[in-house]
Amino acid sequence: MTDSITKMSDQLFPYQQLWDFSNTVFLKIGCPPDQAKQATDVLLSADLRGVDSHGLARLSGYVRLWEAKRINATPSMKIVHESPSTAVVDGDQGLGLVIAPYAMDIAISKAQLCGTGWVAVKNSNHFGIAGYHSMKALSHDMIGISMTNASPLVAPTFSVERLLGTNPICVAIPAGSQPPFVADFATTTAANGKLEILQRKNLDAPEGWIQNKQGGVSTNANELKEGGALLPLGSDREHGSHKGFCLGAWVDIFSAVLSGANYGPWVPPFVSFLAPPTDPVGEGIGHFFGAMRVDAFRPVEDFKHHMDNWISRFREAKTMEGYDKLIIPGDPEREFEATRRRDGIPLNEKVVTDLSELGQKLGVIF
Amino acid sequence: MTDSITKMSDQLFPYQQLWDFSNTVFLKIGCPPDQAKQATDVLLSADLRGVDSHGLARLSGYVRLWEAKRINATPSMKIVHESPSTAVVDGDQGLGLVIAPYAMDIAISKAQLCGTGWVAVKNSNHFGIAGYHSMKALSHDMIGISMTNASPLVAPTFSVERLLGTNPICVAIPAGSQPPFVADFATTTAANGKLEILQRKNLDAPEGWIQNKQGGVSTNANELKEGGALLPLGSDREHGSHKGFCLGAWVDIFSAVLSGANYGPWVPPFVSFLAPPTDPVGEGIGHFFGAMRVDAFRPVEDFKHHMDNWISRFREAKTMEGYDKLIIPGDPEREFEATRRRDGIPLNEKVVTDLSELGQKLGVIF
Repeated sequence: MTDSITKMSDQLFPYQQLWDFSNTVFLKIGCPPDQAKQATDVLLSADLRGVDSHGLARLSGYVRLWEAKRINATPSMKIVHESPSTAVVDGDQGLGLVIAPYAMDIAISKAQLCGTGWVAVKNSNHFGIAGYHSMKALSHDMIGISMTNASPLVAPTFSVERLLGTNPICVAIPAGSQPPFVADFATTTAANGKLEILQRKNLDAPEGWIQNKQGGVSTNANELKEGGALLPLGSDREHGSHKGFCLGAWVDIFSAVLSGANYGPWVPPFVSFLAPPTDPVGEGIGHFFGAMRVDAFRPVEDFKHHMDNWISRFREAKTMEGYDKLIIPGDPEREFEATRRRDGIPLNEKVVTDLSELGQKLGVIF
Repeated sequence: MTDSITKMSDQLFPYQQLWDFSNTVFLKIGCPPDQAKQATDVLLSADLRGVDSHGLARLSGYVRLWEAKRINATPSMKIVHESPSTAVVDGDQGLGLVIAPYAMDIAISKAQLCGTGWVAVKNSNHFGIAGYHSMKALSHDMIGISMTNASPLVAPTFSVERLLGTNPICVAIPAGSQPPFVADFATTTAANGKLEILQRKNLDAPEGWIQNKQGGVSTNANELKEGGALLPLGSDREHGSHKGFCLGAWVDIFSAVLSGANYGPWVPPFVSFLAPPTDPVGEGIGHFFGAMRVDAFRPVEDFKHHMDNWISRFREAKTMEGYDKLIIPGDPEREFEATRRRDGIPLNEKVVTDLSELGQKLGVIF
């Protein structure tokens, strides 16, 4: 889901300029040209779609992980286990931005042969925006699924320990004349990116997003720095946080216990200044991808006709006062993309400074 | 998730007595013996596991649907479309309690051959407790997934119309020395069964479970009778109800748009006194099942070792004051089952009366 609101102080940059910068940075750290291009496509897709926390704002973070030798710029990705409809990929500590599309392509090939394909990945890093990977399936008339585990920031119901990441899921479903259904969401009440926006603005968080280190209610947007935690979707037990915990756990187990990656509190942090756990239970972080051929279930035209009908019916539902329409999953991101391709991508002052410094360090003009 | 608390006024019945009664009722309405047994196993599994709303309390509802000729006691279930890893089943308007295990077995067979199996079902009815179906996969060292759409009671974010059911998902994952991980939950803040408990006790509902017919906040547990709606997991936009909507929509599309069943507001109601829509977009209600062979990803022993480690680590996490441990998905239902197999199954006074009347009507002693 989008976590961005363009502010007056943001500067607008053309897509191509940012793309070229990112691509050159990845080349500078030694990525092969096809991988630099792939990583850049994924990263910029987040900026286009309004998920600013997962776009260029993270570029210097990836570079710092490479400097710390926690990202391998020239990975030998390979399948280490497979069946007709499944595979496990070892990402060789490469960029998740590159490993994820590689794994999703395998899921799509498996689906072409036997209806569906399912790929678990180990030994990877942050894969960027989940939506990019699921949406690869759409042009093949397939449903795409992607999920990943992430650094532990979330306390399950009743816990004061952070045991899970924000563990997003994305399901992308093709339609006919309607745009595709693309549900891309963290399994927490609010994604970490939303909290970061409040931090930058010195605003409080709504109750139900975070807890303090004793597990009590907190509205301090900086609570995570003081031992607090994000809450699973549902916020508290009475409002179903145990279900949000189930979802985050599901993502963790599919991504990491199936693949052989680290899970739960053992997932290595994205930030280079925090060391990974010294007692790993697997390799790197884990992802899980799925592709299902629509015509493995029913003729594509029938399916698309009914998806169009589904989407129209929901889009035209009666709304409560103050709202003119329902939001169909994928609508906001698609609107962001149209605007930003036309007008440019807004970057926050801090991100601009960060990218300029990164450019200077690597000898790339920003 | 469990929705039951044994009350003083509840009467305890031995499992076998209730099983025999249910089996005889299904035989009386014309089910073949193997189907009567299967339907009874599923129904009683809900009572054992503490999901009382989905157990014997629904038996007379199934019979009324049969009387209204909306359930076929002798269905010819069949595969109408398939690929190596997928199938679509036409349930021929049979009992969902019978169609669901039939479809899950197909998913398991497909998984044996090609790693995973995925089955969408149309022309079915209420399938009882989701957990029963997913858990069939466990003894095969497979992960089991089940989901179903249901009568529209839920308003998506910003909607005043009820467009989705409580659309549950269950994921069952085998472990080694630990009991399996079984997450079985409605994609709403609270399941309808929880609301029914409050209605029986004349209690208010917490804020965030339901809205009134204008979309406003309500705590009236009877609000659904006055045009109100259940809310998606997350309760409101600020707390992520759009994510709960994504989940419910995902279940609806996989269960019904993939299979050719009715979806969204067209799903026929479970209760016989409400007529199904006169403009159906598909056949009956829809389900979706998955089975994934663990060894299609990694050796079973490795997987189980790490699942045990995952479960132990979460079970032993530090808790907030007032709670002595985290609840691992599946724990409460397993505890209910142990107690109820030993002490009997508690039935509410109204359910006892209802079953006695049903017995009298069909000439079966309760």
